[in-house]
Amino acid sequence: MIIDSDHDDAFHEECGVFGIFNHADAAALTVLGLHALQHRGQEASGIVSFDGKQFSSERHVGLVGDTFSKQSVIDRLPGNRAIGHNRYATTGGAGMRNIQPLFAEFAGGGFAIAHNGNLTNALTLQKQLQMRGAIFQSTSDTETILHLIATSTSGRLVHRFVDALRQIEGAYSIIGISQNKMIGCRDPLGIRPLILGDLDGAYILASETCALDIIGAQFIREVEPGEMVVITEEGLESIHPFTKTGDRFCIFEYVYFARPDSLFKGRSVYEARKHIGAELAREKPIEADVVVPVPDSGTPAAIGYAQEAGIPFDLGIIRNHYVGRTFIEPTDSVRHMGVRLKHNANKQVLKGKRVILVDDSIVRGTTSVKIVQMVRDAGAAEVHMRIASPPTISSCYYGVDTPEKGKLLASRMSIDEMQKYINTDSLAFLSIDGLYRAVGEAKRSGDMPQYCDACFTNEYPTLLTDREGGGNVRQLSLLSEAQ
Amino acid sequence: MIIDSDHDDAFHEECGVFGIFNHADAAALTVLGLHALQHRGQEASGIVSFDGKQFSSERHVGLVGDTFSKQSVIDRLPGNRAIGHNRYATTGGAGMRNIQPLFAEFAGGGFAIAHNGNLTNALTLQKQLQMRGAIFQSTSDTETILHLIATSTSGRLVHRFVDALRQIEGAYSIIGISQNKMIGCRDPLGIRPLILGDLDGAYILASETCALDIIGAQFIREVEPGEMVVITEEGLESIHPFTKTGDRFCIFEYVYFARPDSLFKGRSVYEARKHIGAELAREKPIEADVVVPVPDSGTPAAIGYAQEAGIPFDLGIIRNHYVGRTFIEPTDSVRHMGVRLKHNANKQVLKGKRVILVDDSIVRGTTSVKIVQMVRDAGAAEVHMRIASPPTISSCYYGVDTPEKGKLLASRMSIDEMQKYINTDSLAFLSIDGLYRAVGEAKRSGDMPQYCDACFTNEYPTLLTDREGGGNVRQLSLLSEAQ
Amino acid sequence: MIIDSDHDDAFHEECGVFGIFNHADAAALTVLGLHALQHRGQEASGIVSFDGKQFSSERHVGLVGDTFSKQSVIDRLPGNRAIGHNRYATTGGAGMRNIQPLFAEFAGGGFAIAHNGNLTNALTLQKQLQMRGAIFQSTSDTETILHLIATSTSGRLVHRFVDALRQIEGAYSIIGISQNKMIGCRDPLGIRPLILGDLDGAYILASETCALDIIGAQFIREVEPGEMVVITEEGLESIHPFTKTGDRFCIFEYVYFARPDSLFKGRSVYEARKHIGAELAREKPIEADVVVPVPDSGTPAAIGYAQEAGIPFDLGIIRNHYVGRTFIEPTDSVRHMGVRLKHNANKQVLKGKRVILVDDSIVRGTTSVKIVQMVRDAGAAEVHMRIASPPTISSCYYGVDTPEKGKLLASRMSIDEMQKYINTDSLAFLSIDGLYRAVGEAKRSGDMPQYCDACFTNEYPTLLTDREGGGNVRQLSLLSEAQ
Amino acid sequence: MIIDSDHDDAFHEECGVFGIFNHADAAALTVLGLHALQHRGQEASGIVSFDGKQFSSERHVGLVGDTFSKQSVIDRLPGNRAIGHNRYATTGGAGMRNIQPLFAEFAGGGFAIAHNGNLTNALTLQKQLQMRGAIFQSTSDTETILHLIATSTSGRLVHRFVDALRQIEGAYSIIGISQNKMIGCRDPLGIRPLILGDLDGAYILASETCALDIIGAQFIREVEPGEMVVITEEGLESIHPFTKTGDRFCIFEYVYFARPDSLFKGRSVYEARKHIGAELAREKPIEADVVVPVPDSGTPAAIGYAQEAGIPFDLGIIRNHYVGRTFIEPTDSVRHMGVRLKHNANKQVLKGKRVILVDDSIVRGTTSVKIVQMVRDAGAAEVHMRIASPPTISSCYYGVDTPEKGKLLASRMSIDEMQKYINTDSLAFLSIDGLYRAVGEAKRSGDMPQYCDACFTNEYPTLLTDREGGGNVRQLSLLSEAQ
Repeated sequence: MIIDSDHDDAFHEECGVFGIFNHADAAALTVLGLHALQHRGQEASGIVSFDGKQFSSERHVGLVGDTFSKQSVIDRLPGNRAIGHNRYATTGGAGMRNIQPLFAEFAGGGFAIAHNGNLTNALTLQKQLQMRGAIFQSTSDTETILHLIATSTSGRLVHRFVDALRQIEGAYSIIGISQNKMIGCRDPLGIRPLILGDLDGAYILASETCALDIIGAQFIREVEPGEMVVITEEGLESIHPFTKTGDRFCIFEYVYFARPDSLFKGRSVYEARKHIGAELAREKPIEADVVVPVPDSGTPAAIGYAQEAGIPFDLGIIRNHYVGRTFIEPTDSVRHMGVRLKHNANKQVLKGKRVILVDDSIVRGTTSVKIVQMVRDAGAAEVHMRIASPPTISSCYYGVDTPEKGKLLASRMSIDEMQKYINTDSLAFLSIDGLYRAVGEAKRSGDMPQYCDACFTNEYPTLLTDREGGGNVRQLSLLSEAQ
Repeated sequence: MIIDSDHDDAFHEECGVFGIFNHADAAALTVLGLHALQHRGQEASGIVSFDGKQFSSERHVGLVGDTFSKQSVIDRLPGNRAIGHNRYATTGGAGMRNIQPLFAEFAGGGFAIAHNGNLTNALTLQKQLQMRGAIFQSTSDTETILHLIATSTSGRLVHRFVDALRQIEGAYSIIGISQNKMIGCRDPLGIRPLILGDLDGAYILASETCALDIIGAQFIREVEPGEMVVITEEGLESIHPFTKTGDRFCIFEYVYFARPDSLFKGRSVYEARKHIGAELAREKPIEADVVVPVPDSGTPAAIGYAQEAGIPFDLGIIRNHYVGRTFIEPTDSVRHMGVRLKHNANKQVLKGKRVILVDDSIVRGTTSVKIVQMVRDAGAAEVHMRIASPPTISSCYYGVDTPEKGKLLASRMSIDEMQKYINTDSLAFLSIDGLYRAVGEAKRSGDMPQYCDACFTNEYPTLLTDREGGGNVRQLSLLSEAQ
Repeated sequence: MIIDSDHDDAFHEECGVFGIFNHADAAALTVLGLHALQHRGQEASGIVSFDGKQFSSERHVGLVGDTFSKQSVIDRLPGNRAIGHNRYATTGGAGMRNIQPLFAEFAGGGFAIAHNGNLTNALTLQKQLQMRGAIFQSTSDTETILHLIATSTSGRLVHRFVDALRQIEGAYSIIGISQNKMIGCRDPLGIRPLILGDLDGAYILASETCALDIIGAQFIREVEPGEMVVITEEGLESIHPFTKTGDRFCIFEYVYFARPDSLFKGRSVYEARKHIGAELAREKPIEADVVVPVPDSGTPAAIGYAQEAGIPFDLGIIRNHYVGRTFIEPTDSVRHMGVRLKHNANKQVLKGKRVILVDDSIVRGTTSVKIVQMVRDAGAAEVHMRIASPPTISSCYYGVDTPEKGKLLASRMSIDEMQKYINTDSLAFLSIDGLYRAVGEAKRSGDMPQYCDACFTNEYPTLLTDREGGGNVRQLSLLSEAQ
Repeated sequence: MIIDSDHDDAFHEECGVFGIFNHADAAALTVLGLHALQHRGQEASGIVSFDGKQFSSERHVGLVGDTFSKQSVIDRLPGNRAIGHNRYATTGGAGMRNIQPLFAEFAGGGFAIAHNGNLTNALTLQKQLQMRGAIFQSTSDTETILHLIATSTSGRLVHRFVDALRQIEGAYSIIGISQNKMIGCRDPLGIRPLILGDLDGAYILASETCALDIIGAQFIREVEPGEMVVITEEGLESIHPFTKTGDRFCIFEYVYFARPDSLFKGRSVYEARKHIGAELAREKPIEADVVVPVPDSGTPAAIGYAQEAGIPFDLGIIRNHYVGRTFIEPTDSVRHMGVRLKHNANKQVLKGKRVILVDDSIVRGTTSVKIVQMVRDAGAAEVHMRIASPPTISSCYYGVDTPEKGKLLASRMSIDEMQKYINTDSLAFLSIDGLYRAVGEAKRSGDMPQYCDACFTNEYPTLLTDREGGGNVRQLSLLSEAQ
């Protein structure tokens, strides 16, 4: 059994978070919210609820719709407030102990947190905390935050939480619940998303607006970069514990991660992607007979490209949506067949045609090679690849699962070399300014870019303390734990 | 927990079949073939292999990619020939004992069969066989065929099989393996598909050509209506046990069931659907700003409609591909929210627009009502629904899971009434002749229609013996068996 | 992982059966009855109930107390009548399809049967039935009975059942339920037990009286050899379909199989075993310091021996009751240690003592070798083994799992050779007449023995058609089925 | 489903521990050792091994023979040292997070510990630690020890461990492994057992000697009260961190907990129990026909009683060894039957007899009531109960699961009242001095008793800080965790 190789050849969002405060169906609604956010993490999910006396926790490996769909599971999560978390795979590896929300029992009471993002000084802090006697149970960077709260000398939980946040670096959108509060916060640069909604008077925090739509909740606003919202029975209080340092939202959320029906900064992700496609058509035009998306992520940009270019859009590649993460290729003979688990060519669309293939990005390039070969085998006369983002040359340290830099095709090849490797008649990427234009900016501001675009530019907006401290590769736990 | 209501509001193909003879990786290839045919049945799958001495069987509830992906499962299916079956839910209900292939040990040896279709005189035959002492173990109509073979007085297996086929009525594409043969056959009218392929000299039988593509096999031809192919180590022999009565392939395979990248009669399903959309645009034009498919089944027809009408195509509805079959709606309050498990409106595409919604068919109409309401809630100025097939007014008795006639919206309402019920500004269906044109005919031949279109016309091409004998509802087994 | 080797070195009863008619708690009481009969089969259990309309079936691998202890399982077995079955491993191998009760749907209605025993002409009959078109689904000899009923030309079920019984040979205690009857029957020689009881007016059939005790039911009488009892709402009818041929109850039930608290023929198994021990003390006395049972089966005989001999009884060997059937001995080094999974020497009892070890029987002898070595290692001065039955020289064909004759120690060695092999200072067996005396007979009647004692005498009381027909080893099914 | 009520009516040892250092089969041998110690805890087991680089952990709910018997499990526990733990149910409730060994990653390296016993100031310490910022992940008192080590300011692990031990009170036999050591220690009074053995040069630590016997290891000596043994590749070092305060081994280990074939202080538990029975016969004689044990725990004392009294010993009560912990009694009607899941009367032994029933102790008395009634129902002429220990009047706080004091029959009734409640013709207990005589003492030393006998005398040998601090009932965790 091997991991589906296409799966490896993509960036993966590591987490989606959801919380609701003061609704009789808190756990059920959290399940639905996590289902809407399933694209942000499919490995495992967890929910912690609070019923006024006790916190209850359920954590399961698998899809929310499979593992949280029984009434009995909901019944084990009583209370009118709950937070939940989907994860792809946290820093530090898989294992039941890393499924969030994480829970800690402080001297002052219980606290559960769900975190989307990644801390860039977690290992450094962990070592300091261990020297002081802290015992880490997970290998998740998120646990560091709990220990910082536990050892804070401030009084109230909110102050202790602020204390903790001031010590951490990196990207974080966090939702927590204590006995009487739900707290949401974003890192000072707002790298990862966090939005605020309302359902019948109950506040909701979630990674994306699509988690509101599924339950018919209203969008209120985004939590601001560096803002902490503290929700109690009395209402919502907004705290700004940090000096304002600007907004560097992850631009890749527009390119690939977020669901097309979600909105950020008042702009739908779908429209952003269509604009990206249109920019690409203007920047990198080519004569062709048909525009074909690499499904499903390339579809909106392909529609935008086709409309702008006036070339017909067609589904030249069919995706099998039943494919799981792992599958057999049991013998060499089978493996050499080049089994097409996920994609198949739609031959009549491609045969004899000059084809523009539109994909969202190129990571390792292995999928692109297979897709292009498949399109050529189907009889395409020409294959022109257009990528709906600039070349990805750097790893992400902010909560996205990326190959190390050396594995990124664009970091080791020129565009010409990439074209030859992928075997297309032409290959072109969107420019960085084109990308900024597509999301409504005139261009990238060199001094203070409006987004985090480190994967395209290698300019990281925060310190990378663990990495710079020589801890390039995160130390694994001494404990190898089976589930 | 309730069944996802959208799921109920569709026709469902009940089976996909696959077989391969004389390949070292027979079981692994069968797994891959079944994976490619997963859209034809997602409830359960089974494989029987033969290693020259013993038949081996594995049967699992769930998706092939989940249940057949371990090496250990493949290892329990030794041999160079294997047949497999995906099922939606066979006549007679779920239960392990109904998962195909079914196996029987005759006086002359073992025989396993996998069946796509449905017999219309199975109950009548079953009663006769029970009177003679047959003991049925499953509630599948397919078992009837095994008993007819077992009690045949002919000599060789092929003759006994022919004996059995001459007694059954209805639709059947069957693949069987005995100790030295793989046999494939289609009913005299060829209602359900069955195609023949080749991989490195090994013969393959499968429901659709996409099962060849996944493993890089070559398409040879379709098995003909009424043809039996007998494959041995010596090669393939074609037998025609029936008087030729015409070809009445299921036209709904083009409309909805088959995968878009499969080919029937030399025509790709995707192209047929685009032609359907174009016919619909010509027959039922309307002024509008955007053509929006109900994903995913309405997408090719919507592309065809948009191209023909010159109206932009856009993804105004986003589908959540992670949705399972069942999900919670645990309390009335949650239920009344109208939870959007599967679809969400892409508001910026719809707001203020005159929208043409394209769907493949209307079954009960419940999904249509919800979709239209969602589109209106998103701010659409007008909603015009265009259906890529004629009204479905009759149940299928040929292996498709359909609601009884009285539940079909088109059988109890006029088109005007349907429009009001669904709450669109206009509603129009493709004509039956338009459908025939889209698949390459001049028009439907009244005397001898070129396809089985009973669901649209109520004209059934075979006897319906069980039904006419008063056994309108199939008698359930006396045994209620848990797994 | 290896099968615990001690386990292999014993005879194993293959089945226990239980049925109850007309009690509101039929399924729950059947679970309790099967729990009391767990010693007769620990591999798998099944229950079929009937609620006036439908039969319901549950079949599970494992102990009744583990697999049938949830309320939800009981709830899936509605109705006021139920039959159940524990099995060790039926003829023909394991597999879900062989878990009894077996169910058949005849032209005239449903019928479920549970069978303790083994047919000696099942294979011969099966071949005949297959020639006529019967399809066997299990590899259990019990299914033969169902096919004989199905193909009987008699009218009513009882007559068809009698028809079937008249064609089968061997040992059988059977309980069946149809839509309006519970039927119990024993083979003409009454080889396997079947008793009749009453709970609040509800009739019970069971293998042993301990299944009555657990639920506080009253013992009525044993079903007689060759008797069929037909229980309906009107009461119990007794039928004697066979010419009376004598009573040949299995004497090994007294020696080993049955629970000590059960009664047969008015005699408790425990008392019989104590009498066996006393006979053994009289027949084969020896001077010693302590009488030590091989636990647990040797304990009652050891008590009887000790009391008769006036030598102290002590627990010199401690048994670990938590041992399962399989356990690791993962490396050669561990294996060579002679791991003591099941038994440990109680050294202070054995050290320096002349020890009489009492065991119920010797099968392969492997356990005896290990036990004796362990007792010697603990410092015993002398080890004298006394076996509470005659040498077992022949296999059982009546529903007991025995090694083939060649593997039986007593069939390939003289007693002197056995003593040397087992390495005792003396070894003695009970005489066959001593065994008969212990169960209340003057001696074994040579012309017409009062019991079936074929395992000791090689005199089989029935035909062995399959065996004599050359089918020495039963043909395995062509289908190797994973669960 | 209800908990088997007999189960509730007993004291339960909470843990067994095992460790081995420097053997190639460390994990496999630990599995076998835990299997031999299964009687000390059947709820769950865990093993942690160390392979020179990483610790590996496996934790499972269920019996060792079921959950640790696969080769794949052993393979996931590499390394030549391992420790394991069986638990009944730790203080603080069930849940995966409480299965031991617990593991912590200190600044200086990893450390895993397995603990038999219970701390009497754990809650008090936990509160102090939480005030300092410690986050507890389990609800086990054992975790307190890890936090005390983590926060110790001493340098080397052994010193930090000693630091921790000097702060805890109560009973503890602990085995730990770090990267280069295995450490064993017993509390200053040696309340719980811990023995030292050797297998081919590899040191073993275990709760009882029977864990050595199963793998053929040699007994070296007991770890002394207050001793810490530190085992490294260089050999064993013995440390005595505490002032010597005497030896107060739990006398109930002899009465009930330990396996009869284990030895403590050079005396086999079986012999101790026989002596207890003999003392009881001398102290509390009665004329009778038969001595019957309540199986299995009463058996050795009954043999001792019978031999001393010269009255025949017989198995008048048969135990069903297949009974699990929970079982159905689904309806009131079934419940009122007084279902006999675990014990059945052996009527022929009891009928018309004057019976002496010997049991090890009376806890709640509910089982005694049922047993006596069963014996009377079987026709006993008289029933005299003899208890092989003094009345249990106080709870244990040293790692034994006991009902609270008010639920102990002997704490709320006089012996006369108990006799009437249990409905015997006579009832007598062994005296406390008789118990001491049976284990080799002249009598109980009033000033400095030789054993911990608090359950009989209410004299606790250690501080009970948590209890005296008002924390009578241990606070449950704020987190209710499924699975």
